[in-house]
Amino acid sequence: MLKHSHQIRVTYQETDKMGIVYYANYLRWFEIGRTEYMRQAGITYKELEEEGIFLPVLESHCEYHQPARYDDLIRIETTINKLKRVRIGFSYKILESESDELLAVGNTIHSFVNQDFEPISPQREKPELWKLLKKNFDKKK
Amino acid sequence: MLKHSHQIRVTYQETDKMGIVYYANYLRWFEIGRTEYMRQAGITYKELEEEGIFLPVLESHCEYHQPARYDDLIRIETTINKLKRVRIGFSYKILESESDELLAVGNTIHSFVNQDFEPISPQREKPELWKLLKKNFDKKK
Amino acid sequence: MLKHSHQIRVTYQETDKMGIVYYANYLRWFEIGRTEYMRQAGITYKELEEEGIFLPVLESHCEYHQPARYDDLIRIETTINKLKRVRIGFSYKILESESDELLAVGNTIHSFVNQDFEPISPQREKPELWKLLKKNFDKKK
Amino acid sequence: MLKHSHQIRVTYQETDKMGIVYYANYLRWFEIGRTEYMRQAGITYKELEEEGIFLPVLESHCEYHQPARYDDLIRIETTINKLKRVRIGFSYKILESESDELLAVGNTIHSFVNQDFEPISPQREKPELWKLLKKNFDKKK
Repeated sequence: MLKHSHQIRVTYQETDKMGIVYYANYLRWFEIGRTEYMRQAGITYKELEEEGIFLPVLESHCEYHQPARYDDLIRIETTINKLKRVRIGFSYKILESESDELLAVGNTIHSFVNQDFEPISPQREKPELWKLLKKNFDKKK
Repeated sequence: MLKHSHQIRVTYQETDKMGIVYYANYLRWFEIGRTEYMRQAGITYKELEEEGIFLPVLESHCEYHQPARYDDLIRIETTINKLKRVRIGFSYKILESESDELLAVGNTIHSFVNQDFEPISPQREKPELWKLLKKNFDKKK
Repeated sequence: MLKHSHQIRVTYQETDKMGIVYYANYLRWFEIGRTEYMRQAGITYKELEEEGIFLPVLESHCEYHQPARYDDLIRIETTINKLKRVRIGFSYKILESESDELLAVGNTIHSFVNQDFEPISPQREKPELWKLLKKNFDKKK
Repeated sequence: MLKHSHQIRVTYQETDKMGIVYYANYLRWFEIGRTEYMRQAGITYKELEEEGIFLPVLESHCEYHQPARYDDLIRIETTINKLKRVRIGFSYKILESESDELLAVGNTIHSFVNQDFEPISPQREKPELWKLLKKNFDKKK
């Protein structure tokens, strides 16, 4: 899987008085993007947490090209752009679905930690997960 | 304490494309109201949770009189309007601070539960907490 | 159309430290419910606003039966439960999709207003809209 | 003014099931930071919009060092770190107020636009605003 694509509709709640989507909401869409990416890849983030693996965000970045607007159908395209021993990175594109216009691009970096927020190595402790992520990451290259 | 009063400023994020505050945000303000009420009464909700008592919401109600707007200073007035063996109710008024105009009124009902969401009786299990809540509730009558 | 049914997935952002969905988010789901109801009925809320009709919320009510949880697929069932000269009411059920377990029920009341928040009569000013809403409301009875 | 400091308390709504503040909320705090910075500098963002100047976000970036937690008092430190003909940049630090522990750092870049989202030059069209921003920016250097 090079990338995963997921479609959502912009809600009223996400807009602000400028008439466009408030900028922090793109980070919520990034969350939806990586969640659906992982589900598609064969593991849900929910299962990961049940097995004691958490992916808190270390860094987020977003460039806003065109404003998303109320009731737009948007497409979130997600890919793994980094896979290190204790870190994983995702990159995202937000597009207006019908016109394919690019609305925003961004990325997030996450660490693999246990319930006590201590770094863990998925390669050692969850080899199956690691294999899965690695496979998807390598296909991308 | 008959009621507790707390002031906040409306943020851009809370507005929507109608140019006014989105209706679900009043419930977030109610949360701030009851949190500060309890702090003022002598116990923080954070401490309650640390002692294993949670107050999930059973019911919420809000009437919207006048729209709150960006950068308004608003006042949240909170009081306990119900105190039963395993339930507590709060009522709220949202006012524009300078004009004292009433923007909204509402209330929430909560159950006392433990970490497994099982009902508990604060009167039996946390007599000090019960005394404190009872005292504030009785003053109101 | 007696009622309209729409399915969404619970995101991480919607949860709180109690491990369940924060109570104000149900009002965001209600918004999605009535938006999709109207789209299904043949008119989008976006178009309504473009024609100068707005539906600000006058009242909201929600009863929380069972907590919604992260990654749950939930179903929002929406129906029109009130249709007066200048007001419209919607009622909602939130269910866990697979088990059909009832998570919450609620309702909202809205006024028909113009861009200056002055009440308008859709029956007089937008007879087509009124006919559409009336038809759906009557079917319900 | 080198920088402006503003204090807020973390709400329950801002936490997620990991027990810490959800990452998109830092961008909402950045908004509060720059709003209060401008108010302190002598102009409110609300007035800016009333005069037809808007500052949509072009870019956001945040590094998360330590998680903010429920009921924490946090301090937002804001400064202008960029001032170009049609752009302005703010940088932010989020600190736990009592311990001064650094929780996050970030920045945002904004364009100056009119109501139709067309770029405008504040230096030419709002010389008073420009002077004010310039003065604060220069002090920083």
